[in-house]
Amino acid sequence: MFSLAELAERLGARLVGDPDCRVDHVATLEDADTGSITFLANRKYARHLATTRASAVLVSESDAEGLNTNALVVRDPYVAYAQVAAWLYPSRDESAGIHNSACVDADAQVDPGAWIGAQSVIEAGAVVEEGAFIGPGCVVGREAQIGAHTRLVANVSICSQSRIGAHCILHPGAVIGADGFGLANDQGQWVKIPQVGRVILGDKVEVGANTCIDRGAIGDTVIEEGVKLDNLIQIGHNVHIGAHTAIAAGVAIAGSAHIGRHCAIGGCAGIVGHIEIADNTTITAMSMVLNSIHKPGVYSSGGPLEDNANWRKNFVRMKQLDDMARRLKTLEKKLEP
Amino acid sequence: MFSLAELAERLGARLVGDPDCRVDHVATLEDADTGSITFLANRKYARHLATTRASAVLVSESDAEGLNTNALVVRDPYVAYAQVAAWLYPSRDESAGIHNSACVDADAQVDPGAWIGAQSVIEAGAVVEEGAFIGPGCVVGREAQIGAHTRLVANVSICSQSRIGAHCILHPGAVIGADGFGLANDQGQWVKIPQVGRVILGDKVEVGANTCIDRGAIGDTVIEEGVKLDNLIQIGHNVHIGAHTAIAAGVAIAGSAHIGRHCAIGGCAGIVGHIEIADNTTITAMSMVLNSIHKPGVYSSGGPLEDNANWRKNFVRMKQLDDMARRLKTLEKKLEP
Amino acid sequence: MFSLAELAERLGARLVGDPDCRVDHVATLEDADTGSITFLANRKYARHLATTRASAVLVSESDAEGLNTNALVVRDPYVAYAQVAAWLYPSRDESAGIHNSACVDADAQVDPGAWIGAQSVIEAGAVVEEGAFIGPGCVVGREAQIGAHTRLVANVSICSQSRIGAHCILHPGAVIGADGFGLANDQGQWVKIPQVGRVILGDKVEVGANTCIDRGAIGDTVIEEGVKLDNLIQIGHNVHIGAHTAIAAGVAIAGSAHIGRHCAIGGCAGIVGHIEIADNTTITAMSMVLNSIHKPGVYSSGGPLEDNANWRKNFVRMKQLDDMARRLKTLEKKLEP
Repeated sequence: MFSLAELAERLGARLVGDPDCRVDHVATLEDADTGSITFLANRKYARHLATTRASAVLVSESDAEGLNTNALVVRDPYVAYAQVAAWLYPSRDESAGIHNSACVDADAQVDPGAWIGAQSVIEAGAVVEEGAFIGPGCVVGREAQIGAHTRLVANVSICSQSRIGAHCILHPGAVIGADGFGLANDQGQWVKIPQVGRVILGDKVEVGANTCIDRGAIGDTVIEEGVKLDNLIQIGHNVHIGAHTAIAAGVAIAGSAHIGRHCAIGGCAGIVGHIEIADNTTITAMSMVLNSIHKPGVYSSGGPLEDNANWRKNFVRMKQLDDMARRLKTLEKKLEP
Repeated sequence: MFSLAELAERLGARLVGDPDCRVDHVATLEDADTGSITFLANRKYARHLATTRASAVLVSESDAEGLNTNALVVRDPYVAYAQVAAWLYPSRDESAGIHNSACVDADAQVDPGAWIGAQSVIEAGAVVEEGAFIGPGCVVGREAQIGAHTRLVANVSICSQSRIGAHCILHPGAVIGADGFGLANDQGQWVKIPQVGRVILGDKVEVGANTCIDRGAIGDTVIEEGVKLDNLIQIGHNVHIGAHTAIAAGVAIAGSAHIGRHCAIGGCAGIVGHIEIADNTTITAMSMVLNSIHKPGVYSSGGPLEDNANWRKNFVRMKQLDDMARRLKTLEKKLEP
Repeated sequence: MFSLAELAERLGARLVGDPDCRVDHVATLEDADTGSITFLANRKYARHLATTRASAVLVSESDAEGLNTNALVVRDPYVAYAQVAAWLYPSRDESAGIHNSACVDADAQVDPGAWIGAQSVIEAGAVVEEGAFIGPGCVVGREAQIGAHTRLVANVSICSQSRIGAHCILHPGAVIGADGFGLANDQGQWVKIPQVGRVILGDKVEVGANTCIDRGAIGDTVIEEGVKLDNLIQIGHNVHIGAHTAIAAGVAIAGSAHIGRHCAIGGCAGIVGHIEIADNTTITAMSMVLNSIHKPGVYSSGGPLEDNANWRKNFVRMKQLDDMARRLKTLEKKLEP
């Protein structure tokens, strides 16, 4: 629980209203009740400002006039909300030590300030640094490294030699460092290419549930600091993702693609291998990226949703497009003066 | 093993043939042998009725004439088949108690009629109700609740505070209640928004292998009773899915989308966040849904598969569509009388 | 570490240069250093041959002239590289026995030459054959069979009765034999169809991280020998995949589809159920396959990536395609002589 005076000081916010008012939970503008703090980050919800029952609201200067509630006026209400929520809901995973059901190899190196959870496995040569939290059912493979204050929530698999930075979060079912899909075709049969590279994750990387990041074939797969990956994402071998790029769920990135810094990639987009995406590029959901993108901007592909009957009619015509274009050209020529 | 007389009584079916004939396994019409019971649910396979070697077949009234086998005549053969198969193949997971390798926190509450499997973890404050089955390698997080007769098959991760209803089935690798993808951008760097809501699953929900359902950001992600989710599905934070909706594998639903009741969503469809889908809506496979759907119906998007050479030609023309439409209009104007 | 003379003999290669030169690691042409062996498989990188610092390079006869390094001249440099890398980086998982934290049911049958890893579970009736490696956190369900020298890396779930061939590799989070998505609709509510078939994996199958292969509804799901599956793939119930087919990440194949031998399926493609794909068919990334393919070839679907502003314009026109085609036809008729 915090007083608004205390929050104002921590945030460097301008306080409008009662400094002694106390908040102990977060809420949406619409569902807020006494004791809650909320925020306005999207103008779409501004109409709720007048009726919200929140004890306090985080707003920007432009929305600070004529409020019925206490307010903390900040530069970016959403960022301020993130901070306040983190203070109100601190992580409860603060233990240190090794659960008696965990299997920690005698040749592993676990900092006394780290936590190794129930039923987890730390293999030989692995290193778990100070303040790291290895949740239940996780496996940290041979010679893998888990950076300080990094959190493996549960049932995470870290394959051998992977290096995870500090202050990372890996959600359940994430798999780091599995073999990439490397195959040579020997007269019709596939021969496995040993995948001898590693995965390197920078600091403050977040990896969603059941997301997979393959180890490099030769050389490493690299995810730079501050990259945020949602759930069920596939990152192929030797992909490189630049710092502070965010990728939504279901995206697949094929081997050796090089994604820039500060990119935003929408859900279920697919990116082929061996291409480059410029820094600051945005790709919208479900887009298919077959070529390099050299110029930052917003890129899209995909067709419109239609009533099934209409879709069927247009679907058939898509096979005739080139023919239609040629016939159009022919007509234009006929009608030239 | 059941006699047909017994099955007829249980199903309320009309029996044609030998009441003492016994069946002990299921089969397809085509591969059936003595002792098997099969069904005709799709007219496409009606031709096999004449030659099937099944001991009995479940059929509707309209197919009950002139059969060479015993028959149970029912309103809906596929539903009847589901029932018969459940009787012939009862679940074998009927134990109660706690496996000696499981880790159950002293502050967890496990009903004596529940089963806690090998290498599983039940954290503090969790509740496991009567008849629930926690399979091997599962993690039930802090203050999570598992309803009566719910089954976690294996290696399932239930994050803290999630509430799972009764008679649910969660397949291996499912992740319930991981953090949603909530980020605020603070001058180029991503700040994590604490995800303080929960996941609420109604009764009789089925969750496929490696499917992920994220916890709410503020407020809860809600999956109503009877919803069936296939494998590798992504459900974002604060999504609401209405009762008895079925969703095929690979679908991704972004945050705060509201899906109606009795919907059917085809494999690999993508649904953006903050939209509404009306009850009884069908969306076909791989569709991209960018806007709300207010009128029930069947909706589709996506282009036709073609020989690669043809596809390349038409692919190029898709970038010229607007131009083609304008040129077509120009020609039409020229030719107006 | 190997001398080039030794490698030449093992590979049946022609050696150009110093037979006593020794190599102990692999590298790319570009990043190679002393002691490394590399390869040229893609003409695109031929320019690096002149400057590589590798101790040896695997090349085909046509590239063997005028090299500055030692060379091993082989029929297929990529296949030869696969072999050399396997010799230089042998698997380190060669243990036999049962880790003291593993739970092996008294009625399971584990070959003394197999390894059962930490925190793993082998249920009643399961069979683990000679040289198999069950990694940490894996679950092998009732009556499942794991073939000789097959490797479950970590946190793999093998459901009851699944049969895994010899020399397979299953990466972390893979789920074999979960229930298929079988439902009958009983007046608006879904009734589960018991899934009583199995999964059968042939020899030398590789299954990627978090990939799911569902058990058959009736009868089995069959993956023939030498099939290679990348990560996050969904294989529905009763799918049949022919030998030596390779499938990239994110693909979903619906129930009862029959995929031929020696096919190649690109990432994130979707294949509907109950269709057939001919042997030797290639399907490019993100394609939507709604019908059987009877003739081998390369098939594609999907639209081009565009700058968002252009895409929006063309996107709208896709709904007008059938109309445009009809109007074009009308104009052509008007202009017929």
